[in-house]
Amino acid sequence: MNTVGYLGPKSSFTEQAVKRVFIHNKRIAFESIFDCLDAVKNEEVDFGVVPLENTIEGSVTITLDYLIHEQSLPIVAEIIVPIQQHLMIHPNNESNEIKSIYSHPHALAQCRKFLYNHYPSVDQIQSLSTSGAAQFVANNPEIPIAAIANELAAEEYHLTVVDQNIHDYEINHTRFIVVCKKGREQELSISKEVSTKTTLIVTLPSDQAGALHQVLSAFAWRKINLSKIESRPMKTGLGRYLFIIDLEGTIESILITSAIHELEALGCGVVCLGSYPIIQK
Amino acid sequence: MNTVGYLGPKSSFTEQAVKRVFIHNKRIAFESIFDCLDAVKNEEVDFGVVPLENTIEGSVTITLDYLIHEQSLPIVAEIIVPIQQHLMIHPNNESNEIKSIYSHPHALAQCRKFLYNHYPSVDQIQSLSTSGAAQFVANNPEIPIAAIANELAAEEYHLTVVDQNIHDYEINHTRFIVVCKKGREQELSISKEVSTKTTLIVTLPSDQAGALHQVLSAFAWRKINLSKIESRPMKTGLGRYLFIIDLEGTIESILITSAIHELEALGCGVVCLGSYPIIQK
Repeated sequence: MNTVGYLGPKSSFTEQAVKRVFIHNKRIAFESIFDCLDAVKNEEVDFGVVPLENTIEGSVTITLDYLIHEQSLPIVAEIIVPIQQHLMIHPNNESNEIKSIYSHPHALAQCRKFLYNHYPSVDQIQSLSTSGAAQFVANNPEIPIAAIANELAAEEYHLTVVDQNIHDYEINHTRFIVVCKKGREQELSISKEVSTKTTLIVTLPSDQAGALHQVLSAFAWRKINLSKIESRPMKTGLGRYLFIIDLEGTIESILITSAIHELEALGCGVVCLGSYPIIQK
Repeated sequence: MNTVGYLGPKSSFTEQAVKRVFIHNKRIAFESIFDCLDAVKNEEVDFGVVPLENTIEGSVTITLDYLIHEQSLPIVAEIIVPIQQHLMIHPNNESNEIKSIYSHPHALAQCRKFLYNHYPSVDQIQSLSTSGAAQFVANNPEIPIAAIANELAAEEYHLTVVDQNIHDYEINHTRFIVVCKKGREQELSISKEVSTKTTLIVTLPSDQAGALHQVLSAFAWRKINLSKIESRPMKTGLGRYLFIIDLEGTIESILITSAIHELEALGCGVVCLGSYPIIQK
């Protein structure tokens, strides 16, 4: 049975993502994205799950930079999870009195309108993680406090959810990725019925106006859809950029491989971070 | 004298950015990006300074989403600050013994190689902010601990820097923006000698392949340089995107205004978040 490392702490949103794909596997929480990815690289775990887009726990920068510089860890799947925040208290708090609300700063931000409308005069106290906030409430039954965290944390720490889905925007998803050591891609079996995405890192031969336009031409005339494009500064200084481009489709498609070969002929650097199924439930 | 709000806590990297532009002004720290931007909107402060790109303290998502939905706060300047991390201890710690190192998770990540090479067996303890870590070291002279934080925090809390510039990548800048209430743009006077940038939010009329390519054509043939492009999901669900595009030049340029008018004629939504000088020292 494969083991799965993930960005902790326990009951994090990343663990929620893990549980959607790896149901019976042993899960190991890591303190940072680096530690988790290193564990995959050193084969201490078989798969790693980390956030790819900005989320409560992690920053896209860390994950992407690691994958760009450490290309031995292909992306083998993407997991899309709705981010649902709940307000929870200790079950002993029968009066439902709440004097302060604990959570990660980003979670407090995600529930800002709700807090403004329902708890305008309650103190908001920042914590390092949403599940850490839940744990703090569990450990302090004698004080009238609440935490904002996910369902998994409510279960883990036996808290009572008093307000469900308190995040301000109904549709709020986060992307997580599954990586493994190169050569072991086949060990993750996902139903073939889901759609596939290919992530490329493209560097331009020059900063001239229109270089990016030329790159996109290679995809546009072939009607290859871009589901994401992002420029990021290269570590060599401000103003020099690389592009992260997500394409709809698999790298086995003749259209995508031809486009990549042409970009390389034009002097672009192209690295494929993975061609992988999208898991969304 | 104008007052300036910024994302705190005191001695944050945002305060470092503020001090580069607003030397003698009164500075007020806010607990969150929202609180800071709200204070500008409600005219409790004259200017606000918040991070725009991922940084130690804040997420680009929060700042950009606020500006997109609250278009009454134009960007009036960008401040680019090198992120320099130092290792600091209490001046009473004369033996330089360090048993644990405190800092924000992102700062620990930025100094990962340094810590691995120089303090491999020292505990790393996460804190809510780099300056909070520095304050903790200042308040606990009796324990052999260190903090990773910036120079401002070392000064504020009278700590001794034992290792300077310990961040792994030499060139590591972060972008901060200055915003004000619409109509008060002229109150910030910046030397005319610096270069100017224009930030646009562009929404496409359809998700069809090539729509973005068409948008970029409007800039490419006019030789308008893009210094950044980023797609972000719209709050209406996954898969529908808006684009944040930074152009080199001012919106007063006839080339940029013509490009915008044409995009609107093609059915794109175009909003200008600001056309502003870049301050980099």
